[in-house]
Amino acid sequence: MTAPYELRVWRVNVRTQTLAREPAPSAWERLGGRGLLARILLDEMDAACEPLGPENRLIFAPGLLVGHMLSASDRLSAGAKSPLTGGFRESNCGGSTGLHLTNMGIKALILEDRPSEPGFWILHLSLGGARWEKADDLAGQGVYEVAPKLLARYGNKVAISVIGPGGENRLATAGIQNLDKEKVPARINARGGLGAVMGSKGLKAIVWDDAGGQKPPIADPELFKATKKAYTQAVLAHPQSHAYRDYGTAANVLVCDALGALPTHNFSAGSFERAEAVSGEHLRDLLLQRGGASDPSHACMAGCTIRCSNVVGDEDGQPIVSPLEYETIGLLGPNLGIADLDVIGRLNRQINDMGLDSIEVGAAIGVACEAGLMSWGDGDRAMALLDEIRRNTPLGRILGAGSVMTGKVLGVERVPAAKGMAMSAYDPRALKGTGVTFATSTQGGDHTSGLTLRVKIDHLDPKGQVEASRMMQINVAGYDTLGVCLMSGSGYSSVPGLVPDLLNSRYGWEFGEDALQVLGKETIKLEREFNRRAGFTKAHDRLPEWFRREVLPPRNAVFDVPAEEMDRIFDDLD
Amino acid sequence: MTAPYELRVWRVNVRTQTLAREPAPSAWERLGGRGLLARILLDEMDAACEPLGPENRLIFAPGLLVGHMLSASDRLSAGAKSPLTGGFRESNCGGSTGLHLTNMGIKALILEDRPSEPGFWILHLSLGGARWEKADDLAGQGVYEVAPKLLARYGNKVAISVIGPGGENRLATAGIQNLDKEKVPARINARGGLGAVMGSKGLKAIVWDDAGGQKPPIADPELFKATKKAYTQAVLAHPQSHAYRDYGTAANVLVCDALGALPTHNFSAGSFERAEAVSGEHLRDLLLQRGGASDPSHACMAGCTIRCSNVVGDEDGQPIVSPLEYETIGLLGPNLGIADLDVIGRLNRQINDMGLDSIEVGAAIGVACEAGLMSWGDGDRAMALLDEIRRNTPLGRILGAGSVMTGKVLGVERVPAAKGMAMSAYDPRALKGTGVTFATSTQGGDHTSGLTLRVKIDHLDPKGQVEASRMMQINVAGYDTLGVCLMSGSGYSSVPGLVPDLLNSRYGWEFGEDALQVLGKETIKLEREFNRRAGFTKAHDRLPEWFRREVLPPRNAVFDVPAEEMDRIFDDLD
Repeated sequence: MTAPYELRVWRVNVRTQTLAREPAPSAWERLGGRGLLARILLDEMDAACEPLGPENRLIFAPGLLVGHMLSASDRLSAGAKSPLTGGFRESNCGGSTGLHLTNMGIKALILEDRPSEPGFWILHLSLGGARWEKADDLAGQGVYEVAPKLLARYGNKVAISVIGPGGENRLATAGIQNLDKEKVPARINARGGLGAVMGSKGLKAIVWDDAGGQKPPIADPELFKATKKAYTQAVLAHPQSHAYRDYGTAANVLVCDALGALPTHNFSAGSFERAEAVSGEHLRDLLLQRGGASDPSHACMAGCTIRCSNVVGDEDGQPIVSPLEYETIGLLGPNLGIADLDVIGRLNRQINDMGLDSIEVGAAIGVACEAGLMSWGDGDRAMALLDEIRRNTPLGRILGAGSVMTGKVLGVERVPAAKGMAMSAYDPRALKGTGVTFATSTQGGDHTSGLTLRVKIDHLDPKGQVEASRMMQINVAGYDTLGVCLMSGSGYSSVPGLVPDLLNSRYGWEFGEDALQVLGKETIKLEREFNRRAGFTKAHDRLPEWFRREVLPPRNAVFDVPAEEMDRIFDDLD
Repeated sequence: MTAPYELRVWRVNVRTQTLAREPAPSAWERLGGRGLLARILLDEMDAACEPLGPENRLIFAPGLLVGHMLSASDRLSAGAKSPLTGGFRESNCGGSTGLHLTNMGIKALILEDRPSEPGFWILHLSLGGARWEKADDLAGQGVYEVAPKLLARYGNKVAISVIGPGGENRLATAGIQNLDKEKVPARINARGGLGAVMGSKGLKAIVWDDAGGQKPPIADPELFKATKKAYTQAVLAHPQSHAYRDYGTAANVLVCDALGALPTHNFSAGSFERAEAVSGEHLRDLLLQRGGASDPSHACMAGCTIRCSNVVGDEDGQPIVSPLEYETIGLLGPNLGIADLDVIGRLNRQINDMGLDSIEVGAAIGVACEAGLMSWGDGDRAMALLDEIRRNTPLGRILGAGSVMTGKVLGVERVPAAKGMAMSAYDPRALKGTGVTFATSTQGGDHTSGLTLRVKIDHLDPKGQVEASRMMQINVAGYDTLGVCLMSGSGYSSVPGLVPDLLNSRYGWEFGEDALQVLGKETIKLEREFNRRAGFTKAHDRLPEWFRREVLPPRNAVFDVPAEEMDRIFDDLD
């Protein structure tokens, strides 16, 4: 007979190598994922601390709805004070890790302090507790090499969170990689430098072994089952799901090109003459034609019915990279003047292998092009620049420090970033609502904080963009707290009551119709308070001034949403 | 017959190459130097602007008492939003430039906008107006090469403000160099990256030709004359003046070593076993013994009776560098494990020639040592690292971006900086009042914002340091507004009434006894408001957290002044 399921906070001190398992304080109970991270960081940390110092916490938390095979709703949030932005950071990922945490009853894993000696460790977590093993034999290796070794050592059923050389070298572009359901370590808590924070804590990998674990209990199984069914039908029926299934997020290439918002040559144009060659449509044709490992429609998490992921294989049927996403295509493709999906895919694989954020690295290389270190379109040179990062040279460390640092060091003004973070393949001058998100979100130039691409609005008109951004920012903060993939948002939003019915039937709570917004607002409120304590003010809620000055062809747009209007976006939450 | 003397604001647009001469607004009238810069930046600029963008202003303003051959009271302030700190920046210098501005009736020169085309210009200013000449033949050259060429071209009587390759390359460590009375271009508006701002405005040099100018009028000549005499006697009589005359600021080497506050091996110790070899006492002996160009007591400005400057010559009697100051010795000497004054002098000369701040560059090299790019004490390697800066390589640009960027890029935590600026040779753990200044001043790790070394207090005791820092910060903000060298502060403060009597007799004003504090408080108030608008909060009024954690030998001190106490330091001014 197993013990009753109980969600607890696991607290690990990486210096003393000790684990404590505690009940969650009541203020943390109704939060998960991103919202819970914000609450914990605010409650436990001096927000003004050094991101790579002993005061920072690295936290992993599954969303509130993780664990029930709800399509695209098993995401894992990781978070810390960001070494890239200096503010609050949450990055979530698909793959299998979120499910393992929930099966193990881990509401949040909080990693504290840092080791007194250099060197790297593997932290093995199971229901039996924590085990520490030296990882010096794995140090310096890429994640594609390390993941199979860990699976061989710990068994094929574990989940893994692992860093590459980038995180070991404390690069602010480093993320944390997790396995997808095919055990490929490319589900990334990608942005904001969380891999560097994990590196600073002396951890090469966390192995999550859920043997003996169990599914979370459900307070009202009948309501839950019915709601789950309604949700699944809604997702399946939504046209957006079909587009993502067929073309993945790469469907956005031609959409953004047509809008004039596709970053080209380091954000100096919004349209790329060879956009077709890097489009989702072309990618699909290519993958279908190649066969072998290639797959235009792949699910990263068990149970996902959208299948927006893909596997890009080469002409011999061997995998190059999985997935290849729109934002990566944008930053490593048109942004660098590169029009070859194979080249982009191979760059992406190298970046993944080093455990880096392909968006931030792509933007940094774009800035380096501007500084004369690479010619537009030169894929070999781009690969050589990645090799600089791997060899940890001064130039490699500049690029690995991200786009803003690259611009500052190399003396380039045209850096497409907000709050220290590169903008993810949506030029804010032609997609102004997303520009508002980049400027006003707590996290900087990250589209997952509130992409307005699907909002029915004239994206070039400054009017109404603050409202559009606000709505999206609140919604996604809610989804990130639930553990719900943004791809399935259209499913959740197309039938009223799905979110509260799922939450209430799972936990026995009494959320109303506005559950998503309640969670989203609470999350943003906590994040803003964290950033305030970290030293952020309205002066930081701005895009670089060249976006207001430089006209973006072909739409001849500048970013002209009034600052005063942006300043009031969350007045009711402050 | 000459026109009556009138102080006016000269406003130059560097894009349109136009000059306008305007009366000063009444709110600017009773300010000069640093205080006037703060007032102008606050009145005219969006404090959140890009420091190297067209919105930033570069301003030159002599202090209120400049122009009367008051000993050590002819200093020139230059200022802008700093590319190093992102906040308010004023750097003042000795030499002849301040006097030229006053003779020309320039209350402030405001440089606006930036050129639409790349390339560098010489701006020639005279009573006849502004003249522009292409400087492309001088671009890339060091200041020791350029200054004689400019004097040959424009006559030996002009003053010059010139940038080196560092400013041309927009390095945040770049300053602006001015001539001393021997025409040596080493009187530097050194810190905070003002040379990069000048580079961004497309100016290689400003030539100040005061031909036809006149001395400012004096409202009450008798009182002025009597007060000037009393002041001169007070300066001459003060023991501090004697110490600075004999040993220059290098007198501080052994003082700080004894206190345990001499930065050694990148601020990992506070005492240097070979301190004697780099002391002011040894420097004096060496210079007296060498003869030739060497001079242990040199005046940088005409009329200075303190003569704290020096000329360091080599064994053949040829000059190496002038002056060699304590803070430079500290950062390039013990901080790098270098115990040879000739080596330090030659490093200093290279840094000057590139137009850089020797404190910030010294600190950046110290951080690079920590990252393994140089061994402690290896002067040849230090020279090679300077050559990287000159060749504008990626590593050179990292170092040239300053200590904080060097630490961020190279992954070094032990960076001795506050608000982005390196600390100038006083370890805040053993000189805690100065630590309070570094943390709470608007300008970062700059001792000229309020050095507490001469305050009668136990420098290791956290108690009373906030009060000591506050007093010094207010006083020096006052002196910087007057154009008074900090070396002569002891003269001004030893006889009550000197400052108001000089101001009132010069201008016909009615300042009271507390004139210095009134001006100092007003200045700090304006600066703090500017920084607030630029996005600074109390979270920025902190030293890096390792100063609270790492114990400094030999005094085994940490920085333990309570943050809450520091937060209240200027409550009455906010």
